[in-house]
Amino acid sequence: MSSAKTQPARGMRDFLPADVRKREYVIGVIKSVYERYGFEPLETPAVENIETLMGKYGEEGNQLIFKILKRGEHEKSGEADLALRYDLTVPLARVVAQYQNELPKFFKRYQIQPVWRADRPARGRFREFYQCDVDVLGSKSMVVEAELIAAASDALVALRFKDFTIRLNHRELMDAHMSASMIEKGRRAAALVTLDKLDKIGIDGVKLELAAQGIPERSAETILYRMMNRTFLAQTGRLDLHQFSTDRPEANLQMLNFQYTSFKGLRSDPELETAASDSIEALKKIVQFTKDTSASGHIEIDPSLARGLSYYTGTIMEINVPDLPGSLGGGGRYDNLVGMFLGKDVPACGFSLGLERIIVVMSERTMFPAELVSSPADMMVTIWNEDSVGESLALATELRSAGLRVDLYPEPDKMGKQFKYASSRNIPFVLIVGDDERERGEVAIKDLKSGEQRSVRRAAVASAIRTGKN
Amino acid sequence: MSSAKTQPARGMRDFLPADVRKREYVIGVIKSVYERYGFEPLETPAVENIETLMGKYGEEGNQLIFKILKRGEHEKSGEADLALRYDLTVPLARVVAQYQNELPKFFKRYQIQPVWRADRPARGRFREFYQCDVDVLGSKSMVVEAELIAAASDALVALRFKDFTIRLNHRELMDAHMSASMIEKGRRAAALVTLDKLDKIGIDGVKLELAAQGIPERSAETILYRMMNRTFLAQTGRLDLHQFSTDRPEANLQMLNFQYTSFKGLRSDPELETAASDSIEALKKIVQFTKDTSASGHIEIDPSLARGLSYYTGTIMEINVPDLPGSLGGGGRYDNLVGMFLGKDVPACGFSLGLERIIVVMSERTMFPAELVSSPADMMVTIWNEDSVGESLALATELRSAGLRVDLYPEPDKMGKQFKYASSRNIPFVLIVGDDERERGEVAIKDLKSGEQRSVRRAAVASAIRTGKN
Repeated sequence: MSSAKTQPARGMRDFLPADVRKREYVIGVIKSVYERYGFEPLETPAVENIETLMGKYGEEGNQLIFKILKRGEHEKSGEADLALRYDLTVPLARVVAQYQNELPKFFKRYQIQPVWRADRPARGRFREFYQCDVDVLGSKSMVVEAELIAAASDALVALRFKDFTIRLNHRELMDAHMSASMIEKGRRAAALVTLDKLDKIGIDGVKLELAAQGIPERSAETILYRMMNRTFLAQTGRLDLHQFSTDRPEANLQMLNFQYTSFKGLRSDPELETAASDSIEALKKIVQFTKDTSASGHIEIDPSLARGLSYYTGTIMEINVPDLPGSLGGGGRYDNLVGMFLGKDVPACGFSLGLERIIVVMSERTMFPAELVSSPADMMVTIWNEDSVGESLALATELRSAGLRVDLYPEPDKMGKQFKYASSRNIPFVLIVGDDERERGEVAIKDLKSGEQRSVRRAAVASAIRTGKN
Repeated sequence: MSSAKTQPARGMRDFLPADVRKREYVIGVIKSVYERYGFEPLETPAVENIETLMGKYGEEGNQLIFKILKRGEHEKSGEADLALRYDLTVPLARVVAQYQNELPKFFKRYQIQPVWRADRPARGRFREFYQCDVDVLGSKSMVVEAELIAAASDALVALRFKDFTIRLNHRELMDAHMSASMIEKGRRAAALVTLDKLDKIGIDGVKLELAAQGIPERSAETILYRMMNRTFLAQTGRLDLHQFSTDRPEANLQMLNFQYTSFKGLRSDPELETAASDSIEALKKIVQFTKDTSASGHIEIDPSLARGLSYYTGTIMEINVPDLPGSLGGGGRYDNLVGMFLGKDVPACGFSLGLERIIVVMSERTMFPAELVSSPADMMVTIWNEDSVGESLALATELRSAGLRVDLYPEPDKMGKQFKYASSRNIPFVLIVGDDERERGEVAIKDLKSGEQRSVRRAAVASAIRTGKN
């Protein structure tokens, strides 16, 4: 049956009805949380001019963009002039530049749409996947970060997640740490990518990679110590976790102070200290501002968090759960991206939840509400014989007008066959308008679970089914 | 501001929040009607293997498909291996072939997703647009056609359309008419396309085109007479409309009988008469089956309706409104398409509503409900000063937990500036937690329309706003 020519394209997926209902449930929950925060919906085309995307995601990103061939007489040139959306952030930056006079001073938008990346497909990694983005443009206030984190947290809580961690760090703080570790400016971008792998390749792995990048061993030792997260610092005996409060917000503030003291011996470099203290202050504010939100117990300041994308300029954040490698979502501040389109910078910060990963975890943990896996209709109307088709159609029409979901068997098959079909589709009731019922102005209702059958006046069918359902 | 590099790609559109809300409203209404008929949602990838699409839409279709360049080392070849979805019907046929063992015997699915065509952009014609498709697979019964027509009609009625016409015809009936007009089999496909233009180019225009195709004048005269619709027949004095009932279903049956009599002189050709009478019987059934549905007064048998797509095999249908050239939607029976993927035929029939055209008409006629153009939030919380940020955030959190949509001004700006901002965004209330209010455990609520301000206990804010709204 399944043959190469009927499969979806590599890394892409068909969603049969039960899958779509799961996806719509998750999207619906996330949307309603975002709306509660005053975010408004935005949609952009799947296809962008190729120049809009190229050069925004780094060299690796360029390779993963799906490019669209020119059309008509230009098709033969083999050149591409369009490309598929790679994320929702670059199109947002374009939109803000294009419609700046129509948009409010603070543009709070959410966008839930697919993106395409020509990545090697793997478990939980697809070539077409949905991002659920929420961004605020126009303000440098840490209230923005606090609201984004709270909204993402509310969304996960509404989906019944309990054990997620929201890791926070700051690109300028990392830069200050690297500066204090005597890592040259030109080597820091690559070093960051390596340091981000601490969880995966361990301390020795990171040291090897840094050495290969030409970073002296002493610098590597220093930056590792400075940027290691709480867990690692505790494991290596460099931090006594018992010195920290068990209240997570309080522990985060202590961790930030602990980091701040690491710049104390460097007071001879006032610029470095200012950069460090400003970003530490920013992180402190986020911790304080989120204290009364659902995010509070979930936030962890993690000096080793780096994030891959090159456009981040300030806060960076990522959400993880213990049973999923990789993240459920992430984001950060990117105050310079709109400037690449507009010629002048607009402060911006955003957060993206990954729909497919949320669904993978929810499916494995069976977190979906039971009602979702229910039947495609409240009842099915059968067709007694060739002459009664009109009667069955009229009955279905009446019940649909009453707001019920009504399937209609399309052919005057044997009754047993029609019942069996309804049963196989989990439809709870079948309605029969046989010759007798027709004469008496009645309809027979059969409960397929109990097998019970009773006749009711035609006008009373809707209410009989509604009662039977409860 | 608006520059080439910030515009969306040619023929594509960005949807700002007000646009998205309109689109979501229409999609929501259509979905809920389809669900009432027991249709279930399906989603397929935007990208298909190029072989899946090529050759399914005719030569012109092939030209309009967006093709995706191979990646990595193969990019230089200039070849395409993938393509963007051109409609929702061919992917459905692929899905039915791929998952036939998982799908019910009668697969009733709806699918509301974008498709892409490299057409020349024009008013109401875009290169990315949404189709709202509803199809039934697995039955040849005319109950299927009746249900599809009723569902499309219900959707339009739910959107408050009143003046639409659902035109119906049958491919086999058209073929019989052409056969009776002595048009050779090989010329019929082209002749159909020409006859479909009767409304646009008139009788003389059609005659010229048919002559150019090598069809004898006498055949052209005959087919024109046979396939002309009621209006044209009446205008040319060939039909007296007063002979027909004013009841539309009744008039349609009379029209079908009128057509049937046109085969009477040809009884020497029994095959032709069977084909004609079978398809006329099929159309009669549809008219009878839809008699008690919302479609009843809207259906018109139109012997000149042809439809462009080559895969139709039986009934064809199209919905029009007077103030829009082109159609709001259309569809038909395509019993052989699944066979192109599966190797064995599966009967199928579907209907597609065009989202953008529905929105164009609804916008021009201002048919959208007034509530849609409302504000992005129920209220906005202001920030009194730097020290009260936490207080404002906590208040916003509380109100959001109560299910309200709450915007939060992100900075401790001057109060007047914050009020002005809320006002410009049509947010009806602003909340203020000044030093006095804070001390008294109160919150000031300002109604931006009336200018009135009052203080309420903090715990009573949600209910005060809810009351104020009514």
